[in-house]
Amino acid sequence: MNEMITSSSNIMIKEIKSLYRKKDRWTKKSFFIEGIRAVEESILSNAKISYIVYSDMLFHIKGGEELLKKIQSSNYKLNYISDKLFKEISDTEKPQGILAVVEYDLKTIDNILKEKDNFIILLDRLQDPGNMGTIIRTADAFGSNGVIVTEGCVDVFNPKTIRSTMGSIFHIPILYYKSSNEAIRDLKDKGIRVVTTSLDAKEFCFDVDFIRDFALIIGNEASGVSEEVIADSDLLIKIPMPGNAESLNAAIASSVIMYEALRQRQSRD
Amino acid sequence: MNEMITSSSNIMIKEIKSLYRKKDRWTKKSFFIEGIRAVEESILSNAKISYIVYSDMLFHIKGGEELLKKIQSSNYKLNYISDKLFKEISDTEKPQGILAVVEYDLKTIDNILKEKDNFIILLDRLQDPGNMGTIIRTADAFGSNGVIVTEGCVDVFNPKTIRSTMGSIFHIPILYYKSSNEAIRDLKDKGIRVVTTSLDAKEFCFDVDFIRDFALIIGNEASGVSEEVIADSDLLIKIPMPGNAESLNAAIASSVIMYEALRQRQSRD
Repeated sequence: MNEMITSSSNIMIKEIKSLYRKKDRWTKKSFFIEGIRAVEESILSNAKISYIVYSDMLFHIKGGEELLKKIQSSNYKLNYISDKLFKEISDTEKPQGILAVVEYDLKTIDNILKEKDNFIILLDRLQDPGNMGTIIRTADAFGSNGVIVTEGCVDVFNPKTIRSTMGSIFHIPILYYKSSNEAIRDLKDKGIRVVTTSLDAKEFCFDVDFIRDFALIIGNEASGVSEEVIADSDLLIKIPMPGNAESLNAAIASSVIMYEALRQRQSRD
Repeated sequence: MNEMITSSSNIMIKEIKSLYRKKDRWTKKSFFIEGIRAVEESILSNAKISYIVYSDMLFHIKGGEELLKKIQSSNYKLNYISDKLFKEISDTEKPQGILAVVEYDLKTIDNILKEKDNFIILLDRLQDPGNMGTIIRTADAFGSNGVIVTEGCVDVFNPKTIRSTMGSIFHIPILYYKSSNEAIRDLKDKGIRVVTTSLDAKEFCFDVDFIRDFALIIGNEASGVSEEVIADSDLLIKIPMPGNAESLNAAIASSVIMYEALRQRQSRD
């Protein structure tokens, strides 16, 4: 049994705190996850866990002791810290007393393409971490190849984004591009159609063929997809909105298009 | 021009603060909205505005002065308060200096039924205000008759819920029932099929006829729809999920079903 760490100046505690900053997450190619479900999911998904920390709080949470035993019987680096210190490093209001630091890998388009039924999500200046996490979770549920994030987006390894993915961050490949236009160029090089939703589009999504490979661009919550990206798109589509709301939430709009593609592909089979 | 109100013990300021509590919102049949967009939307939608308050902050926000002039040239009760007081009553991190107290009306099923193409959303113990607001916004965009909220849900007139509706709270009828089962009984009495998504369902949503009237039940984020409500449902359906995520976010799942209904109805026309 390790001794309990109680000092804020412990090097590991300092590293975890540094992972609140985007710059450090990208330099160290690491992020952290919290809570029983997320840590369990990272283990099940064979994520590259650098180390795990826990505190006594864990014993008051259902399933906490079982998870700890599982971790102890494996080869993970495990550290015991005080409840006070755990609260200091936690990003949640009700910490569960378990946190893991995980290394991440970014993928390239070549890594993720399959023989058929490809669909990729490209996020263009998306700002809300909850929206981003929900889009990643939905893309994972619907079997997308991967999600491309670009420089102007909220950080995908931000604790709030990670939390909203509900574990999907460990399932679905994440790709990074400096700009949406660079990503679009690479997608087109691979023969993948680039599709953007736009309120000014002429075609409804259910009139478009989604059986062929495509990438769907999701824009900024307030201003949508930039003019430049619209100009670069192969196809503009719209979602029917016979009601009164002017627009849909970004995560909702993307889920409708992903579902429409899935529906068409399943009807073909 | 009114004099500037600066005292926290002003009766109107006290009333606004009381509207942070569900109990007071329901006793007074009122809630508040904040920000230029929301107040504009309430005016455009002919909401029953009891009064509006503003502070000097409003003049630093784009469109603030124009909105104020519009309000001053109408018959709204308008009150000028100090910035300090505005920050005290505001629910947002960056207040825009304008807030309105609005009276609400609840509807009944008879109020909202049309001759055909009815679809109603029923929320069963939904807990997240962001999810609820997004569902209301999506239901509004997709032309739903109305949204039924039940006792076990987060409050629909909660400031966070209201904010996530992005103005749709002023467009779409809201109905209230003590329990989902009472609502289901009334829906069935009107000949409306009750549909629930369930991971155990046998039929995919795209194989089900959504042209006939229906009500869609959306359950709790963690535990889904209760056994009792499932037993009362006419039809259980599932959304295809060929990927790795175990489930969809509640707002995403409901939007997919609403879209599927809309798609079927638009293909028929």
